[in-house]
Amino acid sequence: MFHHVKELQFNARVSSPDPSFAKLLLEQFGGGNGELKAAMQYFTQAFSVRQAYPDKYDMLMDIATEEFSHLEIVGATITMLMGSANAELKDATEQKVMKNVTKSITERAEMIHEAATSPEFLVLSGGGPTVTNAAGVPWNGNYVNANGDLTVDLRSNIAAESRAKIVYEYLMQFTDDPYVLESLRFLMTREITHFQVFTAALDTIQPNFPPGILQGDPRFTHAYFNMSNGASARGPWNQGKGPWNDGGQWEYVDKPRDTVVKSQGLIEFPQTDPRSNKDIQQQNENLGRKRSEEIKAKVPKGSNQWSAYPQTELDSPVKKAS
Amino acid sequence: MFHHVKELQFNARVSSPDPSFAKLLLEQFGGGNGELKAAMQYFTQAFSVRQAYPDKYDMLMDIATEEFSHLEIVGATITMLMGSANAELKDATEQKVMKNVTKSITERAEMIHEAATSPEFLVLSGGGPTVTNAAGVPWNGNYVNANGDLTVDLRSNIAAESRAKIVYEYLMQFTDDPYVLESLRFLMTREITHFQVFTAALDTIQPNFPPGILQGDPRFTHAYFNMSNGASARGPWNQGKGPWNDGGQWEYVDKPRDTVVKSQGLIEFPQTDPRSNKDIQQQNENLGRKRSEEIKAKVPKGSNQWSAYPQTELDSPVKKAS
Amino acid sequence: MFHHVKELQFNARVSSPDPSFAKLLLEQFGGGNGELKAAMQYFTQAFSVRQAYPDKYDMLMDIATEEFSHLEIVGATITMLMGSANAELKDATEQKVMKNVTKSITERAEMIHEAATSPEFLVLSGGGPTVTNAAGVPWNGNYVNANGDLTVDLRSNIAAESRAKIVYEYLMQFTDDPYVLESLRFLMTREITHFQVFTAALDTIQPNFPPGILQGDPRFTHAYFNMSNGASARGPWNQGKGPWNDGGQWEYVDKPRDTVVKSQGLIEFPQTDPRSNKDIQQQNENLGRKRSEEIKAKVPKGSNQWSAYPQTELDSPVKKAS
Amino acid sequence: MFHHVKELQFNARVSSPDPSFAKLLLEQFGGGNGELKAAMQYFTQAFSVRQAYPDKYDMLMDIATEEFSHLEIVGATITMLMGSANAELKDATEQKVMKNVTKSITERAEMIHEAATSPEFLVLSGGGPTVTNAAGVPWNGNYVNANGDLTVDLRSNIAAESRAKIVYEYLMQFTDDPYVLESLRFLMTREITHFQVFTAALDTIQPNFPPGILQGDPRFTHAYFNMSNGASARGPWNQGKGPWNDGGQWEYVDKPRDTVVKSQGLIEFPQTDPRSNKDIQQQNENLGRKRSEEIKAKVPKGSNQWSAYPQTELDSPVKKAS
Amino acid sequence: MFHHVKELQFNARVSSPDPSFAKLLLEQFGGGNGELKAAMQYFTQAFSVRQAYPDKYDMLMDIATEEFSHLEIVGATITMLMGSANAELKDATEQKVMKNVTKSITERAEMIHEAATSPEFLVLSGGGPTVTNAAGVPWNGNYVNANGDLTVDLRSNIAAESRAKIVYEYLMQFTDDPYVLESLRFLMTREITHFQVFTAALDTIQPNFPPGILQGDPRFTHAYFNMSNGASARGPWNQGKGPWNDGGQWEYVDKPRDTVVKSQGLIEFPQTDPRSNKDIQQQNENLGRKRSEEIKAKVPKGSNQWSAYPQTELDSPVKKAS
Amino acid sequence: MFHHVKELQFNARVSSPDPSFAKLLLEQFGGGNGELKAAMQYFTQAFSVRQAYPDKYDMLMDIATEEFSHLEIVGATITMLMGSANAELKDATEQKVMKNVTKSITERAEMIHEAATSPEFLVLSGGGPTVTNAAGVPWNGNYVNANGDLTVDLRSNIAAESRAKIVYEYLMQFTDDPYVLESLRFLMTREITHFQVFTAALDTIQPNFPPGILQGDPRFTHAYFNMSNGASARGPWNQGKGPWNDGGQWEYVDKPRDTVVKSQGLIEFPQTDPRSNKDIQQQNENLGRKRSEEIKAKVPKGSNQWSAYPQTELDSPVKKAS
Repeated sequence: MFHHVKELQFNARVSSPDPSFAKLLLEQFGGGNGELKAAMQYFTQAFSVRQAYPDKYDMLMDIATEEFSHLEIVGATITMLMGSANAELKDATEQKVMKNVTKSITERAEMIHEAATSPEFLVLSGGGPTVTNAAGVPWNGNYVNANGDLTVDLRSNIAAESRAKIVYEYLMQFTDDPYVLESLRFLMTREITHFQVFTAALDTIQPNFPPGILQGDPRFTHAYFNMSNGASARGPWNQGKGPWNDGGQWEYVDKPRDTVVKSQGLIEFPQTDPRSNKDIQQQNENLGRKRSEEIKAKVPKGSNQWSAYPQTELDSPVKKAS
Repeated sequence: MFHHVKELQFNARVSSPDPSFAKLLLEQFGGGNGELKAAMQYFTQAFSVRQAYPDKYDMLMDIATEEFSHLEIVGATITMLMGSANAELKDATEQKVMKNVTKSITERAEMIHEAATSPEFLVLSGGGPTVTNAAGVPWNGNYVNANGDLTVDLRSNIAAESRAKIVYEYLMQFTDDPYVLESLRFLMTREITHFQVFTAALDTIQPNFPPGILQGDPRFTHAYFNMSNGASARGPWNQGKGPWNDGGQWEYVDKPRDTVVKSQGLIEFPQTDPRSNKDIQQQNENLGRKRSEEIKAKVPKGSNQWSAYPQTELDSPVKKAS
Repeated sequence: MFHHVKELQFNARVSSPDPSFAKLLLEQFGGGNGELKAAMQYFTQAFSVRQAYPDKYDMLMDIATEEFSHLEIVGATITMLMGSANAELKDATEQKVMKNVTKSITERAEMIHEAATSPEFLVLSGGGPTVTNAAGVPWNGNYVNANGDLTVDLRSNIAAESRAKIVYEYLMQFTDDPYVLESLRFLMTREITHFQVFTAALDTIQPNFPPGILQGDPRFTHAYFNMSNGASARGPWNQGKGPWNDGGQWEYVDKPRDTVVKSQGLIEFPQTDPRSNKDIQQQNENLGRKRSEEIKAKVPKGSNQWSAYPQTELDSPVKKAS
Repeated sequence: MFHHVKELQFNARVSSPDPSFAKLLLEQFGGGNGELKAAMQYFTQAFSVRQAYPDKYDMLMDIATEEFSHLEIVGATITMLMGSANAELKDATEQKVMKNVTKSITERAEMIHEAATSPEFLVLSGGGPTVTNAAGVPWNGNYVNANGDLTVDLRSNIAAESRAKIVYEYLMQFTDDPYVLESLRFLMTREITHFQVFTAALDTIQPNFPPGILQGDPRFTHAYFNMSNGASARGPWNQGKGPWNDGGQWEYVDKPRDTVVKSQGLIEFPQTDPRSNKDIQQQNENLGRKRSEEIKAKVPKGSNQWSAYPQTELDSPVKKAS
Repeated sequence: MFHHVKELQFNARVSSPDPSFAKLLLEQFGGGNGELKAAMQYFTQAFSVRQAYPDKYDMLMDIATEEFSHLEIVGATITMLMGSANAELKDATEQKVMKNVTKSITERAEMIHEAATSPEFLVLSGGGPTVTNAAGVPWNGNYVNANGDLTVDLRSNIAAESRAKIVYEYLMQFTDDPYVLESLRFLMTREITHFQVFTAALDTIQPNFPPGILQGDPRFTHAYFNMSNGASARGPWNQGKGPWNDGGQWEYVDKPRDTVVKSQGLIEFPQTDPRSNKDIQQQNENLGRKRSEEIKAKVPKGSNQWSAYPQTELDSPVKKAS
Repeated sequence: MFHHVKELQFNARVSSPDPSFAKLLLEQFGGGNGELKAAMQYFTQAFSVRQAYPDKYDMLMDIATEEFSHLEIVGATITMLMGSANAELKDATEQKVMKNVTKSITERAEMIHEAATSPEFLVLSGGGPTVTNAAGVPWNGNYVNANGDLTVDLRSNIAAESRAKIVYEYLMQFTDDPYVLESLRFLMTREITHFQVFTAALDTIQPNFPPGILQGDPRFTHAYFNMSNGASARGPWNQGKGPWNDGGQWEYVDKPRDTVVKSQGLIEFPQTDPRSNKDIQQQNENLGRKRSEEIKAKVPKGSNQWSAYPQTELDSPVKKAS
C-alpha cells in the first residue's frame, strides 16, 4: 500500500506565475517520457518479479515510488506557475468580459490568446494540470513497457531514463526562474541516478545478453546488411570485431539483393557466428531451464498470497503461502 | 511525496491460477472505471485545491492514495491469477513446442487459444498486468476528469465511484474463487464508502447547485423539450415541481419545432424560472466574487512554495511562502 | 429514426468572425465534456432500458436528441466564427502568397500564425469544425459512460452535465460577442436543466444507493483511512454520522499501516456498518431478484422486435414481439 | 435541430439472442466504417456548405440523418442479440456463482468464456452497445473526413460508403438469423444508394477533377514511376492514354533512380502533361476566383445567422442575416 | 524487401528556416491524410492481392514505395525548416538562458513562444519531425483503410489521394519560399497522378459496382429518403434517372415517417429497382463464385511461399509454392 | 528515395494456414514493439543526424530499411497464415450461410468463433493484416522515440530491439510450423544483431554518459532513496561504488521523510558526487559548445538542400547547398 507524505521530496518553488512554461512542463506530467510514465512503468514491471526476485522488486518499487513523488513535484510546479488562473475563472459574472474591455484591451487579448494556445488549462482544467503532454495529447497506457523479463525491462528503463533526462535538459532552456530551474535540475539529476541504478542491477544478472533466453540463429547474428546505395559508412558497428565478445567478426553484406537471390532468401546464407548451432541449442536449453526453475521455486503452484503481515523479510509472503 | 508500504492494504489471495479471469480483471487495472483512473483523478484534482481548500486537499489525497493502494491489490491479484505463465515462457528452447505435441496436444492447443484471446499477457507482458482494459485498449489520460471546481469535481467523483462499483459487481459474477471474491468485495465496498465521502464533502460547500458559479438563463432553466413523437412519459423530471426548490415548476414544451419557430429560435421564449434576471445577475456576482476571493486569499501573488518542512498544519506551506 | 428540422433549436448568431474563439469552442463540439459526448452517452444508455423502462427511455432519448441539436448549434457557431476562411482558401492560385506580401505583410503573417495555432481549421478542415477538442485531440468513444444500470448511468449523467456546465462557464470569459454569449448562456443553462431532469429521474428509483444491486461488506463501509501524514482535516466526510442514514458512524483509521498489520490485511478488521452480514445478504438477494424480474418481464426470451408501427404506447413494441 | 421518431426506419427484429454476433456487429456501431462514422462525417461536412451550397447541405443532412437512424437500428439489434444479459447481471447476489456451479457447470463456463472474448459487454456495458468497434477499440474523431471542399468530401463519402457496404457483406456471412439478415441487407443496400447519391451530386459540380482548385505541375502529372524491380505489370494505369482526357499519355519511368540522378532530382524532368504551364496557371486563377466568389456571395462578411424561423427557402437564413 | 537510395526522389530545398511552417507541414508527415498514411495504406492492401492479382500488387507496391519516398521528402523539408534548432538545444549550459536575457530579450521570448506552440519540436524531438499531425496528435493505424477487396480499396485510395491533394493545396498558401513551394507542388501533383492510376486500375475490374460482390435489395436501392423539413433540394441525386444505368429511376420518399409506418418499418415498401430479386440472386451467386475461384486458383491450399529467388515473373512465387 | 525489391529478404513460407497464430503475429506488424515501430523509429531519428553525422545516418537508414523489409516478411506470413479466408468471403451469396448449416455445423460455428476472436481479419480487412497489435489496437505514432540526440536515441533503440526480441521469443512458443519458426528465428536474430550495431555505434560517441549534455547536480547524483518500508535489498545498485567511475559511492538515504524534513526539502542535502559544482559547470559548457559546433559546422545557416545527384559521398549534399 502507499502512504502520502505531505512534504514534497524536493522543495518546489516558483518566483512568479508563467503559464507558457506551465504548458511546456506538462510534457513531464502526462507526456510519453514524463514522471507518470516512469512511475507506472516500474510499478507495472514490479508485479512479475515480486515473488521470484524480491530484491529487484524492492528496487523497482523504491524508484516507482520516487517517480510518483516526482510527478507530484511537477504537478505542484505547474499549478503554482498558473498563478491565480483558477481565481480569475471563478469571477465569472457575465458582464466581466465587457468590463475588462474598458479596463484594458491588451490584458484581455492576452488572456484569450493564452487560452487559444493552452485550451486545456483555461477552458478545461480551470488552471490545474491535465493528464496530457504539452500538446494536449492524453497520457496513454502504451507508454509503459513491461515485458516480464528483467534483462529486457531494465534496458527499457535505462532508455526511459535517458529520454526523461534529455526532455528536462531541453525544458531548462525555456525558463530562467531560478526556483524552477533548481527543481528541474533536481528532477533531471534523479534520471541520471536511476539510469545508474538500473545499469548496476542489470549487471548483477548473468548472462544478460542477448536479452531473454534464446541465442540468435548463428547464420545471421554477425551479418550487417548494407540496405542503401552510395557511399557507405564503416565503423565498429559493421566491421571488425565490434562488440562481439565470442571471437566473431562483422560480416558486411554489401549488395543484399544479390545475396538474397543467390542464397534463395538467405536459406543458404553461410553462418556468421563462430559458435555451432548445437552449442547454441544447449545454451538455450540450459538458460531456459535455469530461469524457469528460479521462478517456479518461488511462485506457489496452488493458492497464493501476496503479502505477509508484517512483511519482515524480502520474500516473506512466499513463505506464508499455503 | 509517497512512501511504499510492502503490506497490501487488503490481504489479496487466490486459490488457484485463472488466466481468463485475470484478463477480465484488467478492466479495473487499466480500464476507464478502474483504480488507476480513480487514483489519477483525485490526485490531479488535488493540485488546484492544495492552497485554497487544504481540508479538501487532505481528503482527495487520502483517497487518491488509497486508490493507488487498490491498484496494487488488483495488479497483485492478476499476477497471481496468471500463475506460472512467466516461468513457462522462460523455458523457451526452440524444440519445446514439438516436445509438447508428443506430451499433450490438448494442453498445447489450450495455451495457443489462451494466447489468442489474451495476447497482451502471453506475447507482450510475459504474464504480468498491462496498462490496458480487459479488451487490451490502453489506459488514457482523458479518463481523468478534473475541472478546477469542487462542486463539479466531487460530482465527477461520485459518478466515477458509482461506475467502479458496478464493474466490481459485474466482475464478481465471473469467479467463484472465495479469496478473489473477498478481495473484489472489499474493493467494491470501498467505492461505496468513497461515494459517501464525496457526498458529505460536497454537502459542506454551499451553495453547490448549479455547479460552478453562474445561474442559468431564467428563460430556459425550467423548460423540458419533448424531442420525440408518440407516447410521452411524464414524471417528476418533466412535470410539477420536480427538484426545483425555488418555487419553480417544469414547463413542458410539447412541440418543440412549433415553439422554436414561434419564438424566433427561442429568443422570445417566455421565462420559466420565477427569479428575475436581475436577481440572478446579483447572485452570480456575489458568488463569483466570494469564491474568487477565497482562493486569492490563499494563493500568493508572487513567489510561491508548495510545502513546509515539516508540514504541521493543513495550510502551513502557504504561511511559508514569502 | 431521426428527423432533421432545419431551424436550429436556438437562434445562433455571431457579430463578426473570431477564429481564435472558434478554436476554443471546439472543446464543446468534439471535446470530452462536449455536446457529442452528451448526445452519444444518453443515446447509448437508452438501448438497455428501451424495453424494461420505457419511461426512462423516453427521457434519455428526448435529451440525447436535444444534445444532438446543441451539437448543431455549436458547429454552426464555429463555422460562422471562421467567417470567410473557406472562401480565402479557395482562391488558391499559386502566386497568391507572393501577391499578398506586396499588399500586406501583417495580414499574411497573422494568417500563418493563425494556421500554426489552429492547424486543424486551415490546413485540414478548410474552415469547418473538426471532431476534436480545442487542442485538436480527436473525440473518443471512451468519453461515453453507459453501464447498463440506471442508478449508475443517471449519476454519470449528472456529473457529465456538471462538467459541460463549467466548460461553458469558462468559455464565456473568452468572448464578448453578445450573440455568441447569448448562445453559450442558452447551452450552459440547458446543462443545468438536464442536471435537474436526471436528479429527479434518479429519485424515482428506490432504492438507488448504493448504485447497482449489492450492499458493501459491513466490515469496511464506514471506515475512513487516513492515508497521509501531518495535520488531518476532519469533517462530515470522515467523522460523526456523515451521510449514513442507517445509524452508522464514520470509523476513522488514523494509522492504516498499523491497522493493516494488526488485522492481517484487514481480514480481522472489526465491522463498521451496524447492519449484520446476513441482513445484507438478504437485501442483496431481494433487490437482485426484483430488478432482474422487472427486466425479464419486459424483454422477450425468444424473438424480439424493437418498434411497433405506429408506436402509440410507451412500451408497444414489446407487445408486438411474438 | 433533430426530432426523434420512435419507429425505427427499418423493422429490426431478431429470432433469438446471439451474443457472439452482437460483438461482431459492434463494428458497424462504433467502428471506423460504421454508422456513427458515416453520420458524423456528413453532418460535419454539412456545416461548411450550409450557406454557399444549400442544395448540397440539404442532401448531406438528409443522409447524415438517415445514418443516425441506421446507427439506432444497429444498436437496437445488438441490444436484442444480447437477450437477457442485463437481467442476468442484475441477479447479483454473491452466492449466485456457486449456485450456478451446482446447476450447470457448462452454462457457467460458457458465460465466463463469453465474458473473456467480449469484456466490453459483460463487465462494462451490462449488455448494451459500446461506442467501440468489434475489437473493443473506441470510436475516434479522426474517422471523420471533412476537408471543406465538395470535390474532395463527396469522394471521401463514396469511399466511405464502399467500405461500409463490404463490411455489411462480410458480416452477413456470420449469421443465419433471417430477421437479422434482412436488417443487414437493408443497411447494406442503403450504402449502395448513398454511393449513387454522392456520385450524382459530384457530377453536378464541374470541373471536379482534380479535386480542389489547383491543376498539377505539367512536368509530373502523367509520369508513372516504376519503383520495384522484376517483372512489371503494364496496363491502362501506366501506359497509353489511360484516364487522361486531355490528349495526354502515360510516361513510364522505368528506372527512377537513374532518371532522378540525370534530372537533378526531377528539376530537369521533361514535361509530361501536354498543356502549357501558363494555361494551367490561368485555369487555376479562374477556378480559384470563381469558387471563392461563389462562397463570398453567400457568406455575410459581418454578423451572421444560421437559421430563419421558419426556414421556408433553401437559403433563407442568408437572407435573414443583417 | 526495400532498398534505400540516398538521392531524394525530388530535390527538396529550403531558402531559409521557418519553424512555423515546419509545424504545419507535419500534417503531411504524420497526419491522417499524409504520406505515411498513403504509404502504409497501399502497402497493407498489397498483401491480400499478392498472389491472386499480381498486376495490381505491382501497382500498389510501386505507389506505396513512392509514398515512402515522399514521406522522406516531407521529413527532410521539415528538418531543414527547423534550421539550427538542434544545435541551439545542444548548447545547454545552465547559465545560457540568463545570458540570452542580456543579449536579446526578444529572441528569447520568441523562442519560448515558439516552444509553446510547437512543444513537440523543442522539448521533445529536439528539432526533428515527430510522427504526429500538425496539432501534435500521433499517427494512428486506423488511418489505414484496407478491406481485402480491390473495388473497395481502390475507391478508398482515390478518396485518400483527393484529401492529400487538398491538404497540399491549403499548405501552399502558408509559405512563399519558392523552393518549398516547388516541392509541395511536386507532391501535390503526384496525388493527382495516383488518383488517375487508381481510377484506371479500378476501370479494368468489371463489374466494379456495387463495390464487393452483393447487389442491393431491390426494394431499397433507388429510394431517397427526405429526412429533413422545409424546402428540399432536388437534383440528379434524388430525381430522374440519376446515375442508375439499369433503367431505374429515383424514388423520392417525401415523408419518411408516414412511409415507414404505412409499410410496417419498410417491410412492405414497394420495390424501387426494376430488376427482379431472382435475377439479383443469380448475379450474386455468379460473381461470388467467379471472384472466389479467381483467388483460389492462385492461393495454394497447403504450404505457401511468398517469393521466388529471383522473381522473374509477376506471379512466379505462386509457381514455386509446393 | 526507396526502391522495392520483390524478393523478400528472408524466404517466408508457411506449412499450412493457421488464423489463430496470424492474429498473434499481428503484434509484430502493428504492435508497440513490432517492425513498423522499429522502421519508423530509426527512419524518424535519421533526419536529425543527416547533415551533422552522416555516418550515423547511413547506419540508421540501413537498419530502418531492413525493418521495413521485415515488416513485409511479417505481413506476408500473416497473409499466408490466413489461407483462403479472402476467397471464402468473396463467395458471398446470401444463401451461403444456410447452405453451410446443412453441410457442416461445426465448420460454420468455428468460423463464427474465429471471427469473434479476430474481428479485424474477417469483418474488416477481409483476411489481410491490419495496422494494429494482436488485440486490435491501432499502431500509434507515440510508439516512436526520437529525441534529437544520439546518446539518447541509440539507447532507445537498444531497448526497442530488446523488446522486439523477447516478443519474437514468446511468439515462437505458439507455433510449431517449421517454416514459420524459421522466419521468426531469423527476425528474432536480427534484433540481436541490431542491438549490437547500436551498442557499437553508441560506443563511438564519447562522452556518452549521462545522455545529452548536462551533468547532474552533484548533491543528488549518488543518492539512493529507500522509498519503502520493511526489509530492503542492498546491492551494487544502492551500495558501494556501483557503476560510478568517478570515485563516487552510493549514498543510501534510509528514511527519506526524515531526511527531506531535516534538509528543508533537500535544499540542504549534502553533496553526494565527489566532483565540484564548478567543474561540472565547466564540463557542461565545454560539451555543449563542442556538440553545438559540430552540428553548426555541417548545417547551413541559410538555404539548404538535402541530396546531391548523384550522392557519391556521405556528406555530399552539404557541399552542394548554396
